[in-house]
Amino acid sequence: MEEKKSVLKQWILSAIKHRSAKELREIFETIPNIDIAEAISDVDDPKLLLYIFRVVGSEYSAEFFAELSSEQQEAVINVFSDKELMEIISDSYADDIVDTIEEMPANIVSRVLKACPKDLRGDVNRLLNYKENTAGSVMTTEYIEMKDSVTVKEAIANIRKNGRDAETIYTIFVRDNSRTLVGTVQLSDLIFSKEDDVLRDIMDKDFVCCNVNEDQEEVAKMFKRYDLTAMAVVNSESKIVGIITIDDVVDIMEQEVSEDIAHMAAITDMEDPYLKTPILKLVLKCVPWILALMVLQVFSTMILSGFENEITKFAILAVFTPLIMDAGGNSGGQTTTMIVRSLSLDEFSGKDYGKVVLKELRVAAIIGGIVSVFAFGWLMFEMSVGIVNTDSILERIAITGGNYNAYMAMIAALVASTLFVTMIISRMVGCSLPFLAKLVKLDPAVMCGPVTTTMVDVISLITYFLLWTQIIGPQLGF
Amino acid sequence: MEEKKSVLKQWILSAIKHRSAKELREIFETIPNIDIAEAISDVDDPKLLLYIFRVVGSEYSAEFFAELSSEQQEAVINVFSDKELMEIISDSYADDIVDTIEEMPANIVSRVLKACPKDLRGDVNRLLNYKENTAGSVMTTEYIEMKDSVTVKEAIANIRKNGRDAETIYTIFVRDNSRTLVGTVQLSDLIFSKEDDVLRDIMDKDFVCCNVNEDQEEVAKMFKRYDLTAMAVVNSESKIVGIITIDDVVDIMEQEVSEDIAHMAAITDMEDPYLKTPILKLVLKCVPWILALMVLQVFSTMILSGFENEITKFAILAVFTPLIMDAGGNSGGQTTTMIVRSLSLDEFSGKDYGKVVLKELRVAAIIGGIVSVFAFGWLMFEMSVGIVNTDSILERIAITGGNYNAYMAMIAALVASTLFVTMIISRMVGCSLPFLAKLVKLDPAVMCGPVTTTMVDVISLITYFLLWTQIIGPQLGF
Repeated sequence: MEEKKSVLKQWILSAIKHRSAKELREIFETIPNIDIAEAISDVDDPKLLLYIFRVVGSEYSAEFFAELSSEQQEAVINVFSDKELMEIISDSYADDIVDTIEEMPANIVSRVLKACPKDLRGDVNRLLNYKENTAGSVMTTEYIEMKDSVTVKEAIANIRKNGRDAETIYTIFVRDNSRTLVGTVQLSDLIFSKEDDVLRDIMDKDFVCCNVNEDQEEVAKMFKRYDLTAMAVVNSESKIVGIITIDDVVDIMEQEVSEDIAHMAAITDMEDPYLKTPILKLVLKCVPWILALMVLQVFSTMILSGFENEITKFAILAVFTPLIMDAGGNSGGQTTTMIVRSLSLDEFSGKDYGKVVLKELRVAAIIGGIVSVFAFGWLMFEMSVGIVNTDSILERIAITGGNYNAYMAMIAALVASTLFVTMIISRMVGCSLPFLAKLVKLDPAVMCGPVTTTMVDVISLITYFLLWTQIIGPQLGF
Repeated sequence: MEEKKSVLKQWILSAIKHRSAKELREIFETIPNIDIAEAISDVDDPKLLLYIFRVVGSEYSAEFFAELSSEQQEAVINVFSDKELMEIISDSYADDIVDTIEEMPANIVSRVLKACPKDLRGDVNRLLNYKENTAGSVMTTEYIEMKDSVTVKEAIANIRKNGRDAETIYTIFVRDNSRTLVGTVQLSDLIFSKEDDVLRDIMDKDFVCCNVNEDQEEVAKMFKRYDLTAMAVVNSESKIVGIITIDDVVDIMEQEVSEDIAHMAAITDMEDPYLKTPILKLVLKCVPWILALMVLQVFSTMILSGFENEITKFAILAVFTPLIMDAGGNSGGQTTTMIVRSLSLDEFSGKDYGKVVLKELRVAAIIGGIVSVFAFGWLMFEMSVGIVNTDSILERIAITGGNYNAYMAMIAALVASTLFVTMIISRMVGCSLPFLAKLVKLDPAVMCGPVTTTMVDVISLITYFLLWTQIIGPQLGF
């Protein structure tokens, strides 16, 4: 991949150097635009880029322009003549223009807007006004809309005439006399229908559409659910104002996933590529969470600290606390992750909470059983072979007498029974918090992991030390 | 949503009860198949389902059948006559049939295969033989292929005649005389071209395609990169053997994301919906990792245990170890998550490792500075207001004398400087392991989190206790 990219770069640069328009055109004919743009992504000499635009045909230039980095776009716009800029812009889709100018300085924005034909400028301005992450902000305004009384023959003629500017001609949106969206027709339906069929009779009435203010995540879910390639976006009067196409949805899906993953790992977000994110921004994404989690830990610190006396008297107790806390954190994290993912895939809704808790309770009981039996054996092994220092046991026996093996077994049993409780609590808390978050309309992915860990830490530590002070300690003469 | 579903269910059941074919047909005309299938997902009386298939037209029945749960499909197949089964099956796409029979008992599989027309049966058998998660296993075999010498007029006539069975008619795959795939033509190109243009002259030569054995994750990346809606799958002789369409890719993307998220949380996988996964399978997905992580923890247990003497002498040391270990785990997790996500989006390749480490080093230094200053203040606060029990300090002062505030400050400084080291190590380890995993061709998401935590735990604990025994402890007369 890397090699192919560098070879392609050499080829393009050599074609530019030799002023070989023919060779450059051949490159554009046989190689996808995105690959070309990526190969020359570090070329920022506007003169080289300008040469490409001058020789490459208009069937490639607008799309190629959209694939350039925003630095390159800015450089090129600065050297374009007004006429050249106008040509590129009028071949571009409104949503691509919005993407371009959103990151540009004001003088570039105004040059680009001036270069837009009047209709397009209106569309661009309107798109710029929709709230981020709504259907309105990702839709485009180049679509084909026809009246329901149009015949198939007229429809095809209309597409031939006006379709070149549309983002897709495969879905045609059908409206009635009051301009209300009433159906969709696929181009394939037109191809398979008779010439004098009327759209009203062949259109799909079971189409879906969304409101301009719909969240883009919901839009992506609808595309997936209904296997769509294009969907109408309507205003509150059911009139179509734009469309969203599947290629935009693929980008939305990726963005939403990055957001979910970031939240689960307690990072503010990951909207920009890592290498392009400034150092200080990376720090700001991470550090508040680390500090917040440290503050949250005050509860487990208090408990540990409250049992300091027991630790002083029998330090081996402190050796096993991280093991218990980590096992609880891992187990809670597993549950939270499964539930958050299922919620975000709409596998179940709030009212399935009862079913989930019941299932988790049974899973947790089995896991608790397995983990505590394993932990008992593993701790006996660790203590027997000397991985864990047993000086505190030996000292104790020297003072009070008692059987060394019985001591080991009692400690292993203490940890094992604490783990049993921990496994149950961690899965109960881990499966409940995402539902609770959803109920109060928070993103279930945010903070559920850390809060689960904190709660499980507290309950496990209390269980551990209570079991010790009330039951096992006294048995061993503490 | 839930309400709409239950209302729809009532409507369908009432239409079936009143044997109203008209009403049922109206439902199918105005409501998407998937919504209907979901509304009656808990209806398993084959007689009711059979009635639906008998009255609903063939334009809906095959697609509706594909949306049913596999239990419902099995029930319906059992009551279908051979003729009815044959009608549904011959209207279905090969890939949907494969999805259906993959989970069925052998007698059903053989009935379905018998019901397939001969061509389709061959396709289904071939698809069943491709390895899971390859392009071959997700492709379908209903596509339109034409010779490059065909004219636009002939092409459109051909589509009208043969296109109904194809999964898409929007991309036409063009081959030369030796049956090699040489280009693609969009239906829109045909619409906009002159009738006697030849495909060879209007086709896109910069198309992309993939091999049957290509990993489905790579296929999904290509769709995203090149904004495709359909892609040819070729064999080793560059002959087309199937196509993949965007709706399959959306499912693949979701599946791959679930896999990544599961791996990061140390769960074996999450391929089935949570509520449908049996209890024991859930246990098996989770419990091996918890046990493995417990075993991995042997290193930190050894270190803690090795410094048991110090803890006995000064138990407050044990109170702060979870705080240090958790902060390291959280910070390492943040880095790992960012790097794993960037790697899976192909934002950078192995050779960018140097750049990443350099960037992380600077981020870590800043985070380390902030966290340690904050921790110093926070610990002083915790100890001053009595959140942390300071009996061990008071006891110590009673024996050896010394200033109480100086003691607190020294302990806070010990934790703060350990955290500085921890932040740096956690980000270095956290950003390196995913690259290392990629280098040895493991999934970077698997185990990087837990292994980072283990390594960071070990290094932090050693730092903490060495700082104590070598520098700070002696200052306080230990």
